[in-house]
Amino acid sequence: MTTEAMPGSRERLLGAAATLTYRDGVNIGVDALCKAAGVSKRSMYKLFESKGDLLAASLEERASAYMAALLPEADDNRSPRERILHVFERAEAQAGTPDFQGCRYLVVQIELKDPCHPAVRVAHRVKDNLTAFFRAEAEQGGASGPDLLARQLILVFDGASARAGIKADTRAGLIAPTVAALLDAANIR
Amino acid sequence: MTTEAMPGSRERLLGAAATLTYRDGVNIGVDALCKAAGVSKRSMYKLFESKGDLLAASLEERASAYMAALLPEADDNRSPRERILHVFERAEAQAGTPDFQGCRYLVVQIELKDPCHPAVRVAHRVKDNLTAFFRAEAEQGGASGPDLLARQLILVFDGASARAGIKADTRAGLIAPTVAALLDAANIR
Repeated sequence: MTTEAMPGSRERLLGAAATLTYRDGVNIGVDALCKAAGVSKRSMYKLFESKGDLLAASLEERASAYMAALLPEADDNRSPRERILHVFERAEAQAGTPDFQGCRYLVVQIELKDPCHPAVRVAHRVKDNLTAFFRAEAEQGGASGPDLLARQLILVFDGASARAGIKADTRAGLIAPTVAALLDAANIR
Repeated sequence: MTTEAMPGSRERLLGAAATLTYRDGVNIGVDALCKAAGVSKRSMYKLFESKGDLLAASLEERASAYMAALLPEADDNRSPRERILHVFERAEAQAGTPDFQGCRYLVVQIELKDPCHPAVRVAHRVKDNLTAFFRAEAEQGGASGPDLLARQLILVFDGASARAGIKADTRAGLIAPTVAALLDAANIR
């Protein structure tokens, strides 16, 4: 039996991995993932080398949609300041959903703790891409220190996501003035 | 046998819980904790209702030392701005240690995901106390919005800790200018 013979199994496993590891943590067992996906363990191991590879693939599969949901259109004619604020507005809206527990690309790195884990590598790259967006907009906007500003923005992004995920803060009235203060300090008007 | 009959067991269990859950995550098993502590499971369950209670007690036990390591002396005659920056300098020094994986009082909340878990309650309270310190200094320093500034500072504290813990950023040259920008925006000189 080739992997091509079970096209639905792969998608169901990716969906179960994304949903259950986010809800319950990365230590969810292979049995629970296979049960939720309606796929045998034998079939799972034909499709993925390990649970780690399945998790990495599920993060990779969602990466494009994650970035598309956050970033503005490439040619929306808004200023870099507005385009940066757009990302935080979108993130704030996502954090308002009932099952939000923080950005999955941050949480998985905190839980796995191993920089060499395949899922951590995927998550790290996704966040690097978001930092690169901030860096490009900072430069475009003439920031006095685009590298520093990009690092500050991803720091605020991850901090806000983590704190909203653990229900430590509602984010309301917090993120916009924080980002504005940093943009002001970098002379991005 | 009463709990008083094994004074060393409790301390060893608290130490093992603190060390191993921080290093490996909260899903570390009771067997591993008991083995590391050199205590039987039977004895453990005489001392603690559950693994969750053991973890909560280990976080509680370290809370005073955690705060003392971060906060300045009560009467050090420095300005609120300097006293706030002191906390971030101490946190930055801690983040430079090889086994640093983020603030344990943040990580445990992200991993457990349950606001009602006894360990999450302890961790939440510890971070609330740190926020209260920021709030009091912000007010003392005449911040234009002390509530907002305190929320911004704990957001930066947690974001920096999370990103240093996953080795996403070294923090070098990042935290001081970020905190300074927020203090400036709140008119704390």
